[in-house]
Amino acid sequence: MVAVIPERVVDGNLDEDIDAAVHLHVEAVLARYLATRRADLPGLARTFATAVDTLSDFALRGGKRIRPTFAWWGWRAAGGAADGPSADAVLTAISALELIQTCALVHDDLMDASELRRGRPTVHVRFTEEHRAGSWLGVPERFGMAAAILLGDLALAWADDMFESAPLTEPMRAAARGPWQAMRAEMFAGQYLDVLAQAEGDESEERALGVARLKTAAYTVERPLHLGVALAGADQDTVDAIRTFGTDIGVAFQLRDDLLGVYGDTEVTGKPAGDDLREGKRTLLVSLGLRRAAQAGRHADADLLRAALGDPELAPDTIERVCALMVEVGAVDEVERRIDALTSAAMAALDTSGLAEPGRTRLADLAIAATRRDR
Amino acid sequence: MVAVIPERVVDGNLDEDIDAAVHLHVEAVLARYLATRRADLPGLARTFATAVDTLSDFALRGGKRIRPTFAWWGWRAAGGAADGPSADAVLTAISALELIQTCALVHDDLMDASELRRGRPTVHVRFTEEHRAGSWLGVPERFGMAAAILLGDLALAWADDMFESAPLTEPMRAAARGPWQAMRAEMFAGQYLDVLAQAEGDESEERALGVARLKTAAYTVERPLHLGVALAGADQDTVDAIRTFGTDIGVAFQLRDDLLGVYGDTEVTGKPAGDDLREGKRTLLVSLGLRRAAQAGRHADADLLRAALGDPELAPDTIERVCALMVEVGAVDEVERRIDALTSAAMAALDTSGLAEPGRTRLADLAIAATRRDR
Repeated sequence: MVAVIPERVVDGNLDEDIDAAVHLHVEAVLARYLATRRADLPGLARTFATAVDTLSDFALRGGKRIRPTFAWWGWRAAGGAADGPSADAVLTAISALELIQTCALVHDDLMDASELRRGRPTVHVRFTEEHRAGSWLGVPERFGMAAAILLGDLALAWADDMFESAPLTEPMRAAARGPWQAMRAEMFAGQYLDVLAQAEGDESEERALGVARLKTAAYTVERPLHLGVALAGADQDTVDAIRTFGTDIGVAFQLRDDLLGVYGDTEVTGKPAGDDLREGKRTLLVSLGLRRAAQAGRHADADLLRAALGDPELAPDTIERVCALMVEVGAVDEVERRIDALTSAAMAALDTSGLAEPGRTRLADLAIAATRRDR
Repeated sequence: MVAVIPERVVDGNLDEDIDAAVHLHVEAVLARYLATRRADLPGLARTFATAVDTLSDFALRGGKRIRPTFAWWGWRAAGGAADGPSADAVLTAISALELIQTCALVHDDLMDASELRRGRPTVHVRFTEEHRAGSWLGVPERFGMAAAILLGDLALAWADDMFESAPLTEPMRAAARGPWQAMRAEMFAGQYLDVLAQAEGDESEERALGVARLKTAAYTVERPLHLGVALAGADQDTVDAIRTFGTDIGVAFQLRDDLLGVYGDTEVTGKPAGDDLREGKRTLLVSLGLRRAAQAGRHADADLLRAALGDPELAPDTIERVCALMVEVGAVDEVERRIDALTSAAMAALDTSGLAEPGRTRLADLAIAATRRDR
């Protein structure tokens, strides 16, 4: 098996230009990069190359490529030319974001003990099953864990290598370094705060918003946009405006995700209804639900919600009761209001940003798509 | 708590020059880098900064700094000037090797479920204990695992950031990129092959040497040396000579490690005698022991050794019998002979390398120190 190139991508010779299909171009350069790195592995590492195929398969199948897409339109809106001499270099640099995301997902699935991702077995599960099928020595789950840790690490190292491989000019590279470095540290910080909040049973809105701010807003929207405009040589005002826009849209994106994680359609989210409750996620929705239930004197209901969080055996009828409760006390409405307010503020920041068309309109469209109910 | 600066290091104002104490200078720049990155974390990530202190503490306490030391002397031997304008930049770039090693150790301890490292609790154990002490929600070990994965990831990301932060000239950076990239991929490949060999119960010498070649020789000696001479602008002949030297010394280093892992003094190795047997490590020593026992018709003894590998309950008297067996069949002598042969070949490569003094002599000294019996 060689690195999988998605069927819709024919070795980068795409019919459409980058503006028309950012995600396809990202997948094409990603596929080429992974194939090159695989080919460069020493002959001794033959069996490792097979493991790398599993990683490539994971990285190349599915995913909306949302981070490179935000980065591309940030670059375009700040004056980057889609047919200019830097376009290919920028495409390579921002496609490396998908390898950071590959590391994040492979390690996150392991930490959460998730069995499925995009309807297919997660990486640690695939290697656990390989161990079991081979009746190998030792504990299958430990082999699966080791493989997932090492392949996630490799994806993270290759993200940096790919970013550095982009033939950017020195000023572009220097400008990009800040957001690139901040983004990775903020992502790991956000993930740690998320895990810590679950462990501590933190019920504060402050912590829930802090996680949303770092884990999602900074990593998924704000810093990719920052990276894009920095690559275009944007001035400080433009950087500030796009970061404000990105932070607001990013938090709104996470709040929408929180609602979908509890109320979402399984076919849309790929996760069973109530899954976030079962995992014990400490979202703003949950914080508001607990506070408002207590304020309404519904202490038994608040306790019901509290007990539901992190209960792996959570029954469907309890999920239904908790879901109804959070609607009744107005927690869902308040989250919707916050999403609206954040989105409006983001659009206002965009309007006064002085960013160029068509990038500005595309950023507005992306923001709406990321935060709407039927996402 | 702030990032720990080792007591022997006073904020980089070291009395001795770099040549006289590479490891102290490495620790000083590492401590400064970690403190800077910690200070740059956003205010929201306050509790993460506390977790980062645990990582810094782990990175800064102990360790021989063997990889940066090889890299420094490679650079010096290929003509780098210890008091020249590039010395500080090179020191920063090669000190980043210690952050790769921090990631490798934190993740390795987790994969191996090791409780202690350098006589202190491993990172995943520290966070497991914090969870238990706080009577937090969920499973303590899962929290410890998540923290260790995320902090190891952070160390790996910061390794790249630190490497990129070194103010190298463009030709230096371009020359360094090859070994830097190859080293990380080879290290993860070697670790994966090691885990796979244990799972498959691989008894071949070929696999044992392949793991030694990638996991130790490439990552610990060959590529750090390659990085050092590349930073000095070495020509292809010099690169080839130093890589040959590094590969041979690196494999010899691992073979010495294999002997110490079974026969070593606990006070020297920090691990109980026979620990590598208990862990089921598939070393060349074990391969030779199995083959030679079978050739001598001692099939029951071979089975005893085979059964000992990976047995967590391995009894002291069985360890003694297995240790005696591998001496009797000549496996230990053969490993010693191979160490001698590899070291001699390495010294011959060094002699004809045309490398400069005092670097050449220091490399020879390092090679002897890494492979001798009382290491």
